[in-house]
Amino acid sequence: MSLGKSIRASAKAGSNIALVKYWGKRDSVLNLPATGSISITLSDLHTKTTVETNSDPTSSINRDRLVLNGKVADASRIAGFLDLFRTLANTKTNFTVTSTNNFPTAAGLASSASAFAALACAMDALLDLELPDHQLSALARQGSGSAARSIYGGFVEMARGQRDDGTDAVAHQLAEPDHWPLRVVVAVTSEATKSVSSTQGMNHTVATSSYYPAWLEQVEQDLQSARAAIEQRNFDALVEVAEASALAMHASAIAARPGVIYFNPATLSCISAVRALRDQGVSVFFTIDAGPQLKAVCLPEDEDQVAETLINVAGVQRILRSGLGLGAARIA
Amino acid sequence: MSLGKSIRASAKAGSNIALVKYWGKRDSVLNLPATGSISITLSDLHTKTTVETNSDPTSSINRDRLVLNGKVADASRIAGFLDLFRTLANTKTNFTVTSTNNFPTAAGLASSASAFAALACAMDALLDLELPDHQLSALARQGSGSAARSIYGGFVEMARGQRDDGTDAVAHQLAEPDHWPLRVVVAVTSEATKSVSSTQGMNHTVATSSYYPAWLEQVEQDLQSARAAIEQRNFDALVEVAEASALAMHASAIAARPGVIYFNPATLSCISAVRALRDQGVSVFFTIDAGPQLKAVCLPEDEDQVAETLINVAGVQRILRSGLGLGAARIA
Repeated sequence: MSLGKSIRASAKAGSNIALVKYWGKRDSVLNLPATGSISITLSDLHTKTTVETNSDPTSSINRDRLVLNGKVADASRIAGFLDLFRTLANTKTNFTVTSTNNFPTAAGLASSASAFAALACAMDALLDLELPDHQLSALARQGSGSAARSIYGGFVEMARGQRDDGTDAVAHQLAEPDHWPLRVVVAVTSEATKSVSSTQGMNHTVATSSYYPAWLEQVEQDLQSARAAIEQRNFDALVEVAEASALAMHASAIAARPGVIYFNPATLSCISAVRALRDQGVSVFFTIDAGPQLKAVCLPEDEDQVAETLINVAGVQRILRSGLGLGAARIA
Repeated sequence: MSLGKSIRASAKAGSNIALVKYWGKRDSVLNLPATGSISITLSDLHTKTTVETNSDPTSSINRDRLVLNGKVADASRIAGFLDLFRTLANTKTNFTVTSTNNFPTAAGLASSASAFAALACAMDALLDLELPDHQLSALARQGSGSAARSIYGGFVEMARGQRDDGTDAVAHQLAEPDHWPLRVVVAVTSEATKSVSSTQGMNHTVATSSYYPAWLEQVEQDLQSARAAIEQRNFDALVEVAEASALAMHASAIAARPGVIYFNPATLSCISAVRALRDQGVSVFFTIDAGPQLKAVCLPEDEDQVAETLINVAGVQRILRSGLGLGAARIA
């Protein structure tokens, strides 16, 4: 009998911010989105994840373990996800996953997106699977719908897909980060874990909002507009579609019964501040996910003014800044 | 030649608050609503209006005049409305209208509702027209859509109507004020004139919001629910439909392109405060019109707690309180 060996692999993935929002699933088990979406992957808000096998036969630990931001966490949320890799590698091994975000967790900053993208990439490395990106994207999606996009860098489009098995519900890159070096200024208005998760909010919206069917109908047109704006680097066009998509997503939730409001007072103040900046000629727009943080996207020359304005908005706790980043990758 | 005579008449009308919202017109000239609506008429937020004939032939004044809250105002907004009465009375007389609100004007407190209801009632008195209420309601509607409801007291339903001439787009009373003595606590979060008027906001929503058709479809069901809740004095049922109608109205505007947001930060804080009160067992719900004020509707025994809570919300300037009131009426 040999001593147990411990092998490990690490990966890093950036968070991403959707410009055309993902809001609603067509299949909850496989996390298949009801519509496509378009996002930008961030360089400076990221998750680093290390996976190790728990293969010491003398150990009493025969289950998966999760250490999230330095604290032992409930591993049940990732056990099903790890099962996908156990199936692919034909193993019954359990794993220890150590995952660290450099930004607030579960506050509408897409921590699950970077987390599951990094985890998929690390597991691929650990198990020597060498899966192609589109397959990693489909796997990441099953951990978190938006994670499918963080496999890729720069400008990314997630396909709705048509198949029931979800193999075509994967992301692909629209453009590299250097195609258009946009900057992102995140106004953190609350670091508390949000009370209604993205999944809860979207499922409640799908089930009860009379506006949801109109949301579904609108998205295809928004995807076309956003694709064209990105291809042409047309900032004004991107302003229009991105703010409209974000507000329409929130409006569909506000019209759920009972209504779900992810904005807090500071979020509204930041919206007003961004609109006022634009009235002054600053190239900036806002987007907001299922949480109270406002993400301002701007041209590089306007970043400092945007950051200085937002940090002075009442209720803004701090500012995070990022450029566009690469896709998920193994790290040493 | 006789000296000119000046006759005068005065009337008073309460503001009203819609529980199932009016949002969108089917005809802009006649102010015909796209849907019905249900409101409560307020006793303590009111307009008093005096009308006088300008019949001194030696006077240089041969046009209508408006004195609004003690200041001379542009009379062009009421000239067309006064024409309706000139036609009915077969006269070319001009009028001086002196109108005073006991609450902030044009900040989402339905000042035009009470103003045009009081003006219609005063003109009816001045010209000895003795019009029935439903006809006064149709006339008031042409000044402001929601004014049609302030002709009546208590619980009031406005009909969408089917006719092109609008004669069936009138309000009627569902119940007297003493049927259910609800109390209203208004949290005034801004006394500034709003930047997007109700009419501008609804027209923009109708023209650009992909959610507006679903709004139209939803209203009939909400009217039924609200009617039943009022008839049965079922507070929980009224909570559900009234908050949903208000949020759906705002959501349709937020999803307009570009989005119209009537909430300010304090409005959101008040929403949270009302929801928190309800979680503690307080019988209260909120509604919000095309402006930043929040109107809390509650049972009498909870009024003091609601008022004390809302006055302590950051950004609330002051509190107004009201019961349910009678319809527009002539006063001495």
